[in-house]
Amino acid sequence: MEIQFLGTGAGVPSKMRNVSSIALKLLDELNEVWMFDCGEATQQQILETTIRPRKVKKIFISHLHGDHIFGLPGFLSSRSFQGGEDEVMVFGPKGIKLFIETSLKVSQSKLSYPIKYVEIEETGLIFENKKFKVYTEKLDHGITSYGYRVVEKDLPGELQADKLRELGVPNGPLFGKLKRGETIQLENGLEINGKDYISNPVKGRIVAIFGDTRATPSEKILAQDADVIVHESTFEAGEGRMARRYFHSTTHDAARLAKSCHAKQLYLTHISSRYVGNSLKMLEAEAREIFPNSKVVKDFDNFVIPLK
Amino acid sequence: MEIQFLGTGAGVPSKMRNVSSIALKLLDELNEVWMFDCGEATQQQILETTIRPRKVKKIFISHLHGDHIFGLPGFLSSRSFQGGEDEVMVFGPKGIKLFIETSLKVSQSKLSYPIKYVEIEETGLIFENKKFKVYTEKLDHGITSYGYRVVEKDLPGELQADKLRELGVPNGPLFGKLKRGETIQLENGLEINGKDYISNPVKGRIVAIFGDTRATPSEKILAQDADVIVHESTFEAGEGRMARRYFHSTTHDAARLAKSCHAKQLYLTHISSRYVGNSLKMLEAEAREIFPNSKVVKDFDNFVIPLK
Repeated sequence: MEIQFLGTGAGVPSKMRNVSSIALKLLDELNEVWMFDCGEATQQQILETTIRPRKVKKIFISHLHGDHIFGLPGFLSSRSFQGGEDEVMVFGPKGIKLFIETSLKVSQSKLSYPIKYVEIEETGLIFENKKFKVYTEKLDHGITSYGYRVVEKDLPGELQADKLRELGVPNGPLFGKLKRGETIQLENGLEINGKDYISNPVKGRIVAIFGDTRATPSEKILAQDADVIVHESTFEAGEGRMARRYFHSTTHDAARLAKSCHAKQLYLTHISSRYVGNSLKMLEAEAREIFPNSKVVKDFDNFVIPLK
Repeated sequence: MEIQFLGTGAGVPSKMRNVSSIALKLLDELNEVWMFDCGEATQQQILETTIRPRKVKKIFISHLHGDHIFGLPGFLSSRSFQGGEDEVMVFGPKGIKLFIETSLKVSQSKLSYPIKYVEIEETGLIFENKKFKVYTEKLDHGITSYGYRVVEKDLPGELQADKLRELGVPNGPLFGKLKRGETIQLENGLEINGKDYISNPVKGRIVAIFGDTRATPSEKILAQDADVIVHESTFEAGEGRMARRYFHSTTHDAARLAKSCHAKQLYLTHISSRYVGNSLKMLEAEAREIFPNSKVVKDFDNFVIPLK
């Protein structure tokens, strides 16, 4: 599991930062990439990475502001041009379907794959498969804005095959019984309970990715015990009034959330273009006053999210 | 008058070429920039140039394929964010208004300036102001596609003031009369006809910019005697069958048009990503076999269009 930032700017693109998009790479887990937001030129940013558009099978849109969605028609069209055949699921606020369908219809784009839309009406669990659950909550950004909590299911414990072989368990069906937690008896009379030889399950990882928002209580539901929180930090700590006025967050808002939810790592993105050079270091330092594992990310930054 | 290529690729962006957009800079003439097509990430390309979005006051769309229009919502939004207040006129096929309005509405973007839409219904003259006329004709691209002919009106001749002063004409209202072509008499009896001291008018420039198309007779109406023709050349000369099949042109198609219309300069754009390195030189050489003043352009190329 890795996370790569495709665009880390706020509102309008700059030479340094493109508008919002994040790739959560679940290649080992699902052979898929999940995209969070898709600002204009996300497909151009992807050209500079190893991401293959056809592996992007889920797209989660936080809100409908242009800097988070205007790259969708182009990305989806190019994914088709490049031979994508698998369905894409698009999650987001009501309106996302109208935008995509109108864009594709006007441009007479015929995709080589189907799109399944999930326009969010109720918060809570919105997606589940064998390995993951995704939850959403409403944030506070004026326009409807969602955050997403991606929860990897715990990985089952593994059978300690080497130890069992030492005890004389022959290869074959007995291993299957032990793996299911049953008790067996060997020819020499030894009884072995499978449960004693299965290691503890490994905790799955939790990644919380926030759309634009002011600090708001629902954030905690998404961020609790997260391995990684990705949060906007449009403004510095001293601009709290400005942040509230424009429905955005400061470094301190994001860091307080990470601290109170016992997160492991905080990535700050959606950085105003006013911050460059030393003032970026200042943003990072501000967040670290409250939550030491804070990092201001830049376009193309890629991080591994390790198992615990 | 200058022309700058913001995106010179075909269909999907590549690392080398972004999708279609062209800026015709009329800064000396009108203090305006006219944009022809606006593929995704045109606003990002503009960041690398001296073009100011608020100077873009006319946008001409050739056709509605995504690689020619998906940059419009972002460009128009950012133009507003950057303080543009003057109206933008958008010319293009029916559907362009629906695309833009839906995108702006869904994203709740409120622009700081009005957009005036001209959805083309009849070909011929579609715009005229003091200095320019713009004509359009239908091309042959499957989907409705237009080419545009921008005609600068002839520049009036200038009064040869130095010569008139040598003859003894005093500064003042007599100069105005002469400029209007009237005849005056000096105190010493000398009669002077203003018409004899006005230099010949200077021919205005003609720029023909084509959308995607197969070779088709209507092209000649737009290209006749052009100073500059901008034409797509998606394929090499030997791929004529492929070009016709996909409603595109080859190097030879474009060069034949330029030659038959007595153009001065041909810029080839909308180049398939299959052509890189030496094969690009081959494209240019093919066109030059027929029309020597041919050039395959690349992103950010900027050319002055001189007066005759």
